[in-house]
Amino acid sequence: MSDRQVKVVLSEKDMPRQWYNIMADMSNLPKPGLNPVTKKPLTPDDLLPIFPMDLILQEVSMDRWIDIPEEVLDIYRQWRPSPLYRARRLEQALGTPARIYYKHEGVSPAGSHKPNTAIPQAYYNKKAGIKRLSTETGAGQWGSALSLACSYFGLECTVYMVKVSYHQKPYRRSLMQVWGAEVIPSPSDRTNAGRQVLAKDPDCLGSLGIAISEAVEDAANRKDTNYSLGSVLNHVLLHQTVIGLEAKKQLELVGDYPDVVVGCCGGGSNFAGLAFPFLADKFAGKEVRAVAVEPTACPTLTRGHFAYDFGDSAQLTPIVSMFTLGHDFVPPGIHAGGLRYHGASPLVSQLVHDGIAEAVAIGQRGVFESAVLFARTEGILPAPESAHAIKGAIDEALKAKDAGEERTILFSLSGHGHFDLSAYDEFFAGRLTDIVYPQEMIDKALASLPVCDEES
Amino acid sequence: MSDRQVKVVLSEKDMPRQWYNIMADMSNLPKPGLNPVTKKPLTPDDLLPIFPMDLILQEVSMDRWIDIPEEVLDIYRQWRPSPLYRARRLEQALGTPARIYYKHEGVSPAGSHKPNTAIPQAYYNKKAGIKRLSTETGAGQWGSALSLACSYFGLECTVYMVKVSYHQKPYRRSLMQVWGAEVIPSPSDRTNAGRQVLAKDPDCLGSLGIAISEAVEDAANRKDTNYSLGSVLNHVLLHQTVIGLEAKKQLELVGDYPDVVVGCCGGGSNFAGLAFPFLADKFAGKEVRAVAVEPTACPTLTRGHFAYDFGDSAQLTPIVSMFTLGHDFVPPGIHAGGLRYHGASPLVSQLVHDGIAEAVAIGQRGVFESAVLFARTEGILPAPESAHAIKGAIDEALKAKDAGEERTILFSLSGHGHFDLSAYDEFFAGRLTDIVYPQEMIDKALASLPVCDEES
Repeated sequence: MSDRQVKVVLSEKDMPRQWYNIMADMSNLPKPGLNPVTKKPLTPDDLLPIFPMDLILQEVSMDRWIDIPEEVLDIYRQWRPSPLYRARRLEQALGTPARIYYKHEGVSPAGSHKPNTAIPQAYYNKKAGIKRLSTETGAGQWGSALSLACSYFGLECTVYMVKVSYHQKPYRRSLMQVWGAEVIPSPSDRTNAGRQVLAKDPDCLGSLGIAISEAVEDAANRKDTNYSLGSVLNHVLLHQTVIGLEAKKQLELVGDYPDVVVGCCGGGSNFAGLAFPFLADKFAGKEVRAVAVEPTACPTLTRGHFAYDFGDSAQLTPIVSMFTLGHDFVPPGIHAGGLRYHGASPLVSQLVHDGIAEAVAIGQRGVFESAVLFARTEGILPAPESAHAIKGAIDEALKAKDAGEERTILFSLSGHGHFDLSAYDEFFAGRLTDIVYPQEMIDKALASLPVCDEES
Repeated sequence: MSDRQVKVVLSEKDMPRQWYNIMADMSNLPKPGLNPVTKKPLTPDDLLPIFPMDLILQEVSMDRWIDIPEEVLDIYRQWRPSPLYRARRLEQALGTPARIYYKHEGVSPAGSHKPNTAIPQAYYNKKAGIKRLSTETGAGQWGSALSLACSYFGLECTVYMVKVSYHQKPYRRSLMQVWGAEVIPSPSDRTNAGRQVLAKDPDCLGSLGIAISEAVEDAANRKDTNYSLGSVLNHVLLHQTVIGLEAKKQLELVGDYPDVVVGCCGGGSNFAGLAFPFLADKFAGKEVRAVAVEPTACPTLTRGHFAYDFGDSAQLTPIVSMFTLGHDFVPPGIHAGGLRYHGASPLVSQLVHDGIAEAVAIGQRGVFESAVLFARTEGILPAPESAHAIKGAIDEALKAKDAGEERTILFSLSGHGHFDLSAYDEFFAGRLTDIVYPQEMIDKALASLPVCDEES
């Protein structure tokens, strides 16, 4: 890499043609998902009412490599390969001997890594004859990605958007509407799940757990409609591995390899997308650390229970083995950083549980301080979620400085923050405090976990 | 270009090292700028209180090529060369035999082409020992670009933001603040120009003309401060030519050349940036059309007077020869499309006047219909300003369809619309009507034009 180069661009012909399936390399696989009613291991038939067979097969595949369809590549190449950056100005500001690289996934039309899986999910559903997809969204990143994907493939799209975000983040809603999606504030009167919540509390502001329940019910009740999830599941993480596969090639081009890769972690798809292709090398004996960064306000991987739990509050989704704060989790206080799901993907959970990946939790003030430093040095305004990874990378760079070592750090800039400026306003106004999720809530969650035979 | 390729990526080493100065090739140069008080041709001394000498020299240079400093290239390469796209999905939706390409300038950290000139302006001012820049901004695109540039070079930045936008577009303001700028709603009590306006009308919502007056006065009164303008001036247009120079190389890579290049036009810097390098070929005998697209609500090039006029309402700026609607111009009605400056750059004005470039005016409903079609086919959400160019390109593509001809159309996607979703909401709600600027206002403006000896 020349002294002045800051960006490593991969040509379209070097774009990965296959996704990497980490399950082929794991010695401990997560325990099987269970039917939420029978609590027996899931069968394809359990999933067929809401997912197309191609995705169900990917969910359980043990093949190391899975071909990316040409139709998906055609859309990936609209913004992929995404650029890899050397954060020279950030390094200088920190005075670190470390080399810091970041993979910029905010260049997608939806502004985050989410289209990496939204596109193939829309494609496989279209191929299966499905006309319409339903999904949920919190702050709106996943909802916009799926709206975009459905727009590309001519599918209808219905997004159940957590009501408080629907009203507080009108521009994410507008964006979905520009791409032709129907956006419904959740809880709504369109589903039993929504009506039950509204009957108890007509002013309920909603939660991700409720919105998932509504979207799943919508899909289960209509033959032309499937459900689409933006994180957590194996096939979602699989699709995201294009991030790490590209990053590896880009680092090869400049003759470097990371000592540590860092990603923010909510459900886990962004972290997995960057880290799994490097963990493939770790399974083969290479030394590389992978660090998942989560908020102290939602410390799933660092303080949650490693157990079977539901993916949603209405207990409609399969029961999966993961780190969880309990499916009744409600985010505490004013938290601006996203990443507020009670669970983490079974694959990421298993890898952290087995010590193959690491996890750290950080407070939101440090996250926003890092975000502003990054914007003022590298220019790019990061999403608050991505800023967790920035803070994680900065901490690693400062450790390298203390040790006087030239370490190589790679992190995922999973999205831009163009729709998150109200959170920056809150930060500048001093209204964001560091929130630590209370231990008694974590202890209490234990009682809510489903009792499953498989667990014993 | 292969059948599936959609994006032409230029490597960093093929980034232009020089800007193209169209003045070297024009047989009719614009009449000289005049001192606003003496009405005598401007001298460098007139400009030195607010501009550094390097930029003044570029303003009057007749050199065909001007070197881009290494320090500017270092920052350009953060996002440059910007990608050139083939709009395959848009072509299919239109059923046109035309090949449509667009140059995507929305990939800059500030989201538009504006940093192409903000960066060198900040650099030359820093080099001249200046500590602080002042500027104005309407919707905020220019203000954010200069804030970003000042952040890169460690300069202070004060942005006078039109008051109505300051309150209606809080996120553009927040963005500037993230980059460390001071943002002041204009009219303010910080300047004589502002205080005079407020004395007459304490509730005045501001205008671009007033904000320019405030920023110029601020710079003129402080030795450590210069003024920075985001369009209109020769050196600004010069810096933007990286757009067209890159696009030419990218089209060469795929063996194509445009029959017509299309850009939206407010002050003219985006249009010039794309079109001037192609007009260089036109001066050398090649056939190529260049079309500037402006709103019918502010039809400067299509219906304005070709005359000497002031650049601001307080008559503090030099008098320049241009198409103008009069420096007292106030945008009519609810117009969401930006591009609302009363004048157009002297260079673009001269070229249109001489028939070397063309201009068309279009209504905002067609602009937003085109924007939505573009977002739903190409994925990218365009800025309303850029959507004028999209509409212009679509009209050209439909003409090619009528003629049954395989024409090549190139337009500039000057910025993304992530901060413009309220305008899309207005459009979907049916609140945007086509506005045609009234002829009597244009007639009336004639009386407001300064009388200048040079004109005779």
